[in-house]
Amino acid sequence: MKVNGQAYRSIWLAADGVGVEIIDQTQLPFRFKVVRLETLDEAMTAVSRMLVRGAPLIGATAAYGICLGLRQSVTSQALESMASRLIACRPTAINLRWAVERMLRLLLPLPEGQRLAAAYREAGRICEEDVATNEAIGRHGATLIRALRDKKQPGEPVNILTHCNAGWLATVDWGTALAPIYAAVAEGIPVHVWVDETRPRNQGASLTAWELVAAGIPHHLIVDNAGGHLMQHGLVDCCIVGTDRTTASGDVCNKIGTYLKALAARDNGVPFYVALPGSTVDWTVDDGVAEIPIEERGTEEVLRLQGEDETGMVRTVAIAPAATPAVNPAFDVTPARLVTGLITERGVCPASRSGLLGLYPEHGR
Amino acid sequence: MKVNGQAYRSIWLAADGVGVEIIDQTQLPFRFKVVRLETLDEAMTAVSRMLVRGAPLIGATAAYGICLGLRQSVTSQALESMASRLIACRPTAINLRWAVERMLRLLLPLPEGQRLAAAYREAGRICEEDVATNEAIGRHGATLIRALRDKKQPGEPVNILTHCNAGWLATVDWGTALAPIYAAVAEGIPVHVWVDETRPRNQGASLTAWELVAAGIPHHLIVDNAGGHLMQHGLVDCCIVGTDRTTASGDVCNKIGTYLKALAARDNGVPFYVALPGSTVDWTVDDGVAEIPIEERGTEEVLRLQGEDETGMVRTVAIAPAATPAVNPAFDVTPARLVTGLITERGVCPASRSGLLGLYPEHGR
Repeated sequence: MKVNGQAYRSIWLAADGVGVEIIDQTQLPFRFKVVRLETLDEAMTAVSRMLVRGAPLIGATAAYGICLGLRQSVTSQALESMASRLIACRPTAINLRWAVERMLRLLLPLPEGQRLAAAYREAGRICEEDVATNEAIGRHGATLIRALRDKKQPGEPVNILTHCNAGWLATVDWGTALAPIYAAVAEGIPVHVWVDETRPRNQGASLTAWELVAAGIPHHLIVDNAGGHLMQHGLVDCCIVGTDRTTASGDVCNKIGTYLKALAARDNGVPFYVALPGSTVDWTVDDGVAEIPIEERGTEEVLRLQGEDETGMVRTVAIAPAATPAVNPAFDVTPARLVTGLITERGVCPASRSGLLGLYPEHGR
Repeated sequence: MKVNGQAYRSIWLAADGVGVEIIDQTQLPFRFKVVRLETLDEAMTAVSRMLVRGAPLIGATAAYGICLGLRQSVTSQALESMASRLIACRPTAINLRWAVERMLRLLLPLPEGQRLAAAYREAGRICEEDVATNEAIGRHGATLIRALRDKKQPGEPVNILTHCNAGWLATVDWGTALAPIYAAVAEGIPVHVWVDETRPRNQGASLTAWELVAAGIPHHLIVDNAGGHLMQHGLVDCCIVGTDRTTASGDVCNKIGTYLKALAARDNGVPFYVALPGSTVDWTVDDGVAEIPIEERGTEEVLRLQGEDETGMVRTVAIAPAATPAVNPAFDVTPARLVTGLITERGVCPASRSGLLGLYPEHGR
């Protein structure tokens, strides 16, 4: 996608073919800052401190992290150790594990001398595949938006609510939940987006809003509390969100608060779609609420908040009494029964085992 | 309730018997600042800028606002004009209108010379009645908490989730939703409170948390997105919230986001209680979603946020791109079907017309 007229992805190999460059997403929407990663440790810090976030982008960063690690050591022992350290950075998103295991599967059988070059090639391939996957998600999702448009007065926008950021910043390009919106807008469908702020880290206010401003797509920021009210009053035509892990039965683990929007959508007859690449499905898990580990992040994310003061300085302010403690679960699980459909790179399917197996028969038993 | 060992209410007549003193709630939890109101305009500003908020406290402030206005003019025309200006300050909360109409009903028939003194007496009476009402709400609500305690292991706390602030700061004293908690703790029941931050104005993080710190009641701050996840994992024994207007059929209009928590409570079998004085019932309205006017507040409340920086200075920071617009509905309506019970000063009843009429038969037709 373009930033000030220049095409960007969220991660790319530096011009020297060695370092990896990312956008420091903790600085958005206030500063657009590119950061160069040179080592495995830097890649791990970028993931755990959330300079990069979003399940697909975490996967791509982990793949390049292995490349950077191999520059220090190409032994199998080193590879295994890198892999487990990377996977531990964020416990919930499955793509991290998926990408690391894909790298290991390719690299471990190779002679040590071929591993580094093969790793860079494979990381690049993961990125290219992600872009193609998201483009396909956009194409399939756009058909759903087109159908909603066809039920409206000419020119009236389709109102889509999204939670967190599942745009191009969460992937290598295009995004998952925002890909259908970008595709629909590209074919001339008028779309208006309700952007959930997404406390505690405000990825909606800082990243999704920033993406939509850059793309010139009409939107309004709302607090996370407002979506139910908007749905009660007919102001939301559908919800589209991303997911960090989807179970084999169609339960969807996504940013904390997603479940509340799915409940409101169900209560008001609003379609609730989840957009995902097949790599986000964890075929080993059925019951998302019982089985998916939910990352508990630092409580300062709840107790403090980052913003830009009137002088343009980015500051962190405390919003609660000093004696008040907090808890900070980063994700929740939306049961499949609340999901209208899954938008994947292979098409749209019901959120169920049979729905998923219809598109991904290779995972059938 | 006590602040640093000294007993306070949220509004009181100044020592000179003329001015009215309030706590500037926009400065909490960072500064405890008492403000003196001398004129009707100052009272109106205190209400509209939310130095005071919470349906019962707005009512009490409006009653004293009429006293302050009468110091300028005691004519019937002046009284009618004050009343309509006060009612326009906040459109959703019904207690504002209730208190103003009660003052008018008493004052208009009186000779002009008796109005000022009568107004001060009546405003004082409204405050005393509010305190007694909330104490009764606390007593009735505590029986519900006691019943939840009886299902737990000895010493295990009852986990109560609340949204926004319906504590003593929202009333003259005790609160509505927090009154049962204060009463339960006073009788030795261990209670732990999940405090919803309550964006956009963060009354949970700034007011409820501050009240609970002052009262020494265990609590954790959570983002508004987290409650559903906590309920899915059995960490919430009940929800108790306040209300700004309750319809004759038991629909509950309260701070934006209340509806989402009620949906999650229903989905997880968690009791969802609403605490209210009878004065909060609007007997003229049945369908809350269709009929209650929802106040749209300024969008800067969504786009900006107030907190204390590391030097102790209270600052406002922007959290979204400058080009991003927002909408800011301040309340939503929770349909009666999602409410387990209404906790009133006359007892607990089902959220229904017959339930309410059982306690308030004087409103039967």
